[in-house]
Amino acid sequence: MFISRRAQEIQASPIRKLKPFADEAKKRGIHIFHLNIGDPDIPTPKPVIQAFHEYQGPILGYGPSQGFEELRQAIADYFASYGLSLSADNVLITIGGSEAIHFSFSVVADPGDEIIIPEPFYTNYNGYATFADVKIVPLPLKVEDGFRLPPAEQIEALITPRTRAILLCSPNNPTGTVYTEDELRRVVEIVKKYRLFLIGDEVYKEFVYDGLRHKSILEFKEIEEQVIVVDSISKRFSACGARIGAVITRNQDVYQAILKFAQARLCPPSVEQYAALAAYRMGMSYFEPIRQEYQKRRDVLFAGLTSIPGVVLKKPQGAFYMICRLPVKDAEHFVQWMLTDFSIDHKTVMVAPGPGFYATPGSGLDEVRIAYVLKEEDLKQSVEILREGLTRYQKLFG
Amino acid sequence: MFISRRAQEIQASPIRKLKPFADEAKKRGIHIFHLNIGDPDIPTPKPVIQAFHEYQGPILGYGPSQGFEELRQAIADYFASYGLSLSADNVLITIGGSEAIHFSFSVVADPGDEIIIPEPFYTNYNGYATFADVKIVPLPLKVEDGFRLPPAEQIEALITPRTRAILLCSPNNPTGTVYTEDELRRVVEIVKKYRLFLIGDEVYKEFVYDGLRHKSILEFKEIEEQVIVVDSISKRFSACGARIGAVITRNQDVYQAILKFAQARLCPPSVEQYAALAAYRMGMSYFEPIRQEYQKRRDVLFAGLTSIPGVVLKKPQGAFYMICRLPVKDAEHFVQWMLTDFSIDHKTVMVAPGPGFYATPGSGLDEVRIAYVLKEEDLKQSVEILREGLTRYQKLFG
Repeated sequence: MFISRRAQEIQASPIRKLKPFADEAKKRGIHIFHLNIGDPDIPTPKPVIQAFHEYQGPILGYGPSQGFEELRQAIADYFASYGLSLSADNVLITIGGSEAIHFSFSVVADPGDEIIIPEPFYTNYNGYATFADVKIVPLPLKVEDGFRLPPAEQIEALITPRTRAILLCSPNNPTGTVYTEDELRRVVEIVKKYRLFLIGDEVYKEFVYDGLRHKSILEFKEIEEQVIVVDSISKRFSACGARIGAVITRNQDVYQAILKFAQARLCPPSVEQYAALAAYRMGMSYFEPIRQEYQKRRDVLFAGLTSIPGVVLKKPQGAFYMICRLPVKDAEHFVQWMLTDFSIDHKTVMVAPGPGFYATPGSGLDEVRIAYVLKEEDLKQSVEILREGLTRYQKLFG
Repeated sequence: MFISRRAQEIQASPIRKLKPFADEAKKRGIHIFHLNIGDPDIPTPKPVIQAFHEYQGPILGYGPSQGFEELRQAIADYFASYGLSLSADNVLITIGGSEAIHFSFSVVADPGDEIIIPEPFYTNYNGYATFADVKIVPLPLKVEDGFRLPPAEQIEALITPRTRAILLCSPNNPTGTVYTEDELRRVVEIVKKYRLFLIGDEVYKEFVYDGLRHKSILEFKEIEEQVIVVDSISKRFSACGARIGAVITRNQDVYQAILKFAQARLCPPSVEQYAALAAYRMGMSYFEPIRQEYQKRRDVLFAGLTSIPGVVLKKPQGAFYMICRLPVKDAEHFVQWMLTDFSIDHKTVMVAPGPGFYATPGSGLDEVRIAYVLKEEDLKQSVEILREGLTRYQKLFG
């Protein structure tokens, strides 16, 4: 039977495709430090678990397509803590940040239209671009520059008559870069000049270190009709399995259009929305100890990695990822080899090969993404395993 | 700002667009019998609620993209109760039946391709067709025939080089028709002859009356590579707000392709999957009293409606809907008038106007869909209110 072209073209999750090798290693009794996926190890806050326990039914019926008003208001209040004035009617609850991305791509672009995204970028943008038949135009960034945005001319050079939006993810997955106000303003001027949408993936908003402050694209009032923010509770509250996200926009045409997409899928899960509400009601003080924990981990991992000869990276300021260059020719082969042929005391490390985060063919071949979602002690061990693994691998494969 | 063509074209939920008039009526103190939407009033089974209470965390992390294996196996076991042999690897958990439809459309068809669907049909097929840029080709059925499928030639006449699939919903929303083995075989022969996919929406499988047995398209082994079934726990277990559905297929190319779509959205909600598992573990005896309750309601509603002069309908055999012709020219205007200008003892009835269930312009203008999701006594009152409302309306508008 013929399968659709889009089904053939959609990329299998590059992060997940090494899983069989990991499963095999586990069968051989190897413990794997999973630095390959951003599944936080911070316990889900108790009030969230409690919300499930308090659910009484009696009928688990449909909710509103845009999500419960209480939750939408709680999210507006959360943004108010960042000095951003929004109403519940600027917030539409989605089934995870994933759906927020899908809705955003679909509302700004028709099949064949283009969205510019700095690369390396979050792999799932690819999936949704294929799903929505939208073309991602990568803006190549470099590990040596700490993945900083290039001058305006380089961004403008990518604009065509089919360009519909620029997407910025900050704090960035996979690089950990937090864009400065200056970098953001550079992009704001471009979207103003060319009348483009600016999509902001800001799901790591709280994970910003060294006393830096995250600047949201929602703060640029002069382009407020052009801004769509993609949001999620997954990382913010260690609740990836809840599948609660949101689209935030002040553009009511965009909101109403997304509402129509949302109506087609009826509603987000009800009980999980109550759980999300409980999370937001904890208030902003919840984040400080978590931010400190991640900052400590980043420091440990950064110090460890930069002490390995041949590893190239700049210190990232946010999220819980970093992309670094390794002294290998084929990072994917190295990652696989670490699972199939290497261990120390029955322990090994799994990281994510770089090419999965690039749209430009041949890019990121010698890079990996490392997530610091394990505790300090495990990160230290992981670094030593990586150090030893690299030494051995270089002897074998040069 | 320019909004994408698909966002402009996607239909706003026709069922939901009369909601403002209903809200207004409620503000005036009017009680509305809601026969317009299929939100069951049967309580969600206790084990499902209990599953939420038993959730302990500690980390609400990502699950597998295809859903938890235990749940997939439980669904395979459920199908085994119907004599259908499936493995867990034929079942992929989706975020509601809605996502199952979206995935199915996207895997069989590329933008511009066609799917034949008997009309009237479930409104949300429209939403997903627009979202996936797929064209629905309606196969017009008639209330006078009880919405029975026409001879093969009439179906074949709709096939073009771009036809990719036929979709059958049985038991049918919105008509309540349950296709006979003979009708199904007619379509099976066509999909065989033209190498099309056959998509079955069988979410109302249990709601079949008069001792009839639901025949699944999965029973036709000779086309097993061409069959995709869309499933959901929403109606089966009165759990619409859980957003747990499934795609069932024995075609492993289709399964693997859908898995890639599923990976893009990471996973279905975790706790809700445990709730669904608890539901399936109740066993098949759960359904019998519920079936009896709905059959009784259907009988009450059918007897009541056919006693109103000018109402045309055949007795439906399944689901919990019926479409009938009313003695009015413009059913949408009548439905709205019932909310804005009519009540008996501060009570009125809301039904769903027919045109929303048709793709062919001008069809269903004098029809409405009525859902029997209220208890017998309320249905009886609703019929009397409709009877009186129709009499009054005809005097005013002819």
